[in-house]
Amino acid sequence: MSHIREGLRPGGRSARVQIAIHKAVNELITQIGSDAITVPMIANHAGVTPTTIYRRWGDLPTLLADVSLQSWQPETPPPDKGSLKADLYHWFEEFVDEMSSGPGRQVLKDVLASQQKDQTARCCGFTLQQVQHILQRAKERDDRSIPTVDDILDGVIGGLIYRIIFLQEPPSVDHLHRMIDRVLLMARADQEQS
Amino acid sequence: MSHIREGLRPGGRSARVQIAIHKAVNELITQIGSDAITVPMIANHAGVTPTTIYRRWGDLPTLLADVSLQSWQPETPPPDKGSLKADLYHWFEEFVDEMSSGPGRQVLKDVLASQQKDQTARCCGFTLQQVQHILQRAKERDDRSIPTVDDILDGVIGGLIYRIIFLQEPPSVDHLHRMIDRVLLMARADQEQS
Repeated sequence: MSHIREGLRPGGRSARVQIAIHKAVNELITQIGSDAITVPMIANHAGVTPTTIYRRWGDLPTLLADVSLQSWQPETPPPDKGSLKADLYHWFEEFVDEMSSGPGRQVLKDVLASQQKDQTARCCGFTLQQVQHILQRAKERDDRSIPTVDDILDGVIGGLIYRIIFLQEPPSVDHLHRMIDRVLLMARADQEQS
Repeated sequence: MSHIREGLRPGGRSARVQIAIHKAVNELITQIGSDAITVPMIANHAGVTPTTIYRRWGDLPTLLADVSLQSWQPETPPPDKGSLKADLYHWFEEFVDEMSSGPGRQVLKDVLASQQKDQTARCCGFTLQQVQHILQRAKERDDRSIPTVDDILDGVIGGLIYRIIFLQEPPSVDHLHRMIDRVLLMARADQEQS
């Protein structure tokens, strides 16, 4: 399966076609829901041939995941709440709210249905970049015991997403704080040992 | 969406119909692949009406998830390797191998496509029951610091599954052992504090 072509020249023919197709998908989702959409419908609505769509995205689930993720890209870095712990608490509270909302669950569903490594990696790329930003800020504050992105993935993100998609029940705020506290505690223990 | 009716009388009409439909799905998956299957095809192959299928499962993704999960149900309790740590190492090494294999990823895909709480909860129910079995055995061995199922979910299972479905890269055995070690260490710290 081919990669989605990124980095199109803005305003170029290819970029305009992509914008038209994304717009058609969003309009059709509003009108008839994403389960009823077909590639010929999107092509017709966007004024392109189905081949154009298949050539760029490969299949419908990949296109739907691409459109979902486009709207999910974070626009700003995580707000500075004064400390690593406060930054993580704040950012993950919003993350849980967003991912367990209707649109958040739809993004997860679209991305997982596509089964494209491009899409799934892009989806967690957004999350890991934001976490990286928080950890980098902690370094600049001269915090001494900072967990790694992998620590946060294994100790916070994985459990949250598992609870949202499998148990279909997001953790409570207290539970979330406990997960974050544990990762911070382990980082402190690792730092004291070294 | 209705629950799948479980606990059918073995040998009853309903149970026989269910077996015929599951068999038809498995045969069609082998013949044409799961992406090409339709409800009328399954009905025709099993000698039932499509209505029978819709009445019991609601939709095709739910039926496919049900069939996937049927073959995924653990048949034996986790083997006894002599200690809690050895039991967890052994069981999770197999779990990672299975879930990141082709059939394992297909089960995850089918279950997530169904988006039915019944199916997703049943899927993680299998996992959590096996973990519970290991923890119960540790209690019987008089281990003093035993993590909870929630600790294992947050500290091991979530991260593993996230890595498999989003990063599409299972953790190394060393990484897996480190995740388990951390959960055991935290349980020990909790026990010493209390």
